[in-house]
Amino acid sequence: MAMSQRIFTAALVVIGDEILSGRTHDKNIAQVASWLQVQGIRLAEVRVVPDVEERIVEAVNALRARNDYLFTTGGIGPTHDDITVDAVAAALGVAVVIHPEARAILERYYVDKGGLNEGRLRMARVPEGAELIPNRMSGAPGIRLGNLFLMAGVPHITAGMLDALTGQLEGGAPLLSETVGGFIPESEIATLLRDTEKAHEGCQIGSYPFFREGRVGSNFVIRSTERTALDACMADLCAGLDRLGFAWTAGGI
Amino acid sequence: MAMSQRIFTAALVVIGDEILSGRTHDKNIAQVASWLQVQGIRLAEVRVVPDVEERIVEAVNALRARNDYLFTTGGIGPTHDDITVDAVAAALGVAVVIHPEARAILERYYVDKGGLNEGRLRMARVPEGAELIPNRMSGAPGIRLGNLFLMAGVPHITAGMLDALTGQLEGGAPLLSETVGGFIPESEIATLLRDTEKAHEGCQIGSYPFFREGRVGSNFVIRSTERTALDACMADLCAGLDRLGFAWTAGGI
Repeated sequence: MAMSQRIFTAALVVIGDEILSGRTHDKNIAQVASWLQVQGIRLAEVRVVPDVEERIVEAVNALRARNDYLFTTGGIGPTHDDITVDAVAAALGVAVVIHPEARAILERYYVDKGGLNEGRLRMARVPEGAELIPNRMSGAPGIRLGNLFLMAGVPHITAGMLDALTGQLEGGAPLLSETVGGFIPESEIATLLRDTEKAHEGCQIGSYPFFREGRVGSNFVIRSTERTALDACMADLCAGLDRLGFAWTAGGI
Repeated sequence: MAMSQRIFTAALVVIGDEILSGRTHDKNIAQVASWLQVQGIRLAEVRVVPDVEERIVEAVNALRARNDYLFTTGGIGPTHDDITVDAVAAALGVAVVIHPEARAILERYYVDKGGLNEGRLRMARVPEGAELIPNRMSGAPGIRLGNLFLMAGVPHITAGMLDALTGQLEGGAPLLSETVGGFIPESEIATLLRDTEKAHEGCQIGSYPFFREGRVGSNFVIRSTERTALDACMADLCAGLDRLGFAWTAGGI
């Protein structure tokens, strides 16, 4: 894969009433985000939308216009509430067609499970011009259309599809990070964090407080695409914590 | 609270680089969604945006224009990356001011913890005209400005703020739901689901497949604001499952 200093971004549309009702706890945002980091691609925005075609169309069109890649999760199964393929085809202005290879995959997958029926055949439908993303877990493939990737909602099926895409996408320099943490109230070192970030161009410091064992603490994450800058910033932050008398642990706690 | 047949909607903006990097798994979407259901308010859309003012402004303005309520989580702490108050003030075109009651709360909270400093005082800043949302967990209050609610990112602090708001918001009839599940492949009953939904106006059926103990199964969730319609739809769906020879469990599995 070509490496470049340009920043590549992706957006994710999570599709499904079950997330918006609170019934299902989304796991795909975190797993797609982590996977993208390894590919050198930054997740720039996520939208969670209901199973309503016009809302999916709006999100897909807004986000694909300003990102290098767009992923969706959810809504590609066999039932009436699975409308992602139709919505994406509408967003792109292309027809929905049966993909012959997807049909063959599903025929093989269901050969000893009662064969294809109307619902199962729905999973062979793709926006015209699409390729398939392999699904080792459950037959029905994901769908790729240029820089647009339609994936399953069930997290471990999504994981398999991401795995199949590993190394296939052009990305930039991966974002590196270093973490330092301790039972340190972030409100006592806000000035140190701000000044340290300012002194190290190309580095960003995030502050993530927690309450654990009845005590207040924080992890501080420094991010940069440059190893030298990152290490210098980390060294300065740790020296600052020493100066203020805080115990800290590299890697975070 | 006034009850009405009108549907009330809310949107949520989750603010924070830590969610988009995959470092932190969001828990606020699910908890805000579940809480809203009980208030009779539908979560219509969620956006996850980075700690970048213009992206927060864009999301806040897009979503508040088309929903009755707007919630944000994250970015109201003491450090330089906490920019939610500034971004929301910019979105609304109002100034940022120190809220005297918030300042007093923080002075009391930190009295034996080293007192107020620049970072801690940041947590008393609000968009002009705001009220406070009590925070029993950690001093720094949430912020309410009309139908806009700025809450913490740490989930158990957010939970306390939601608790303080319970019963305060006008909502419609709460969305009711019934669930039936079993080791039933959704792809074998797609037609039954579609036809049952069509036959019961005001009911929606969601189909949520899973893989467990090496077997394929699904839970089917029927949602409606009307108890009679919901019960009739549930009865029909269960009768349909019986007819097709599937074992099922009310409440889901």
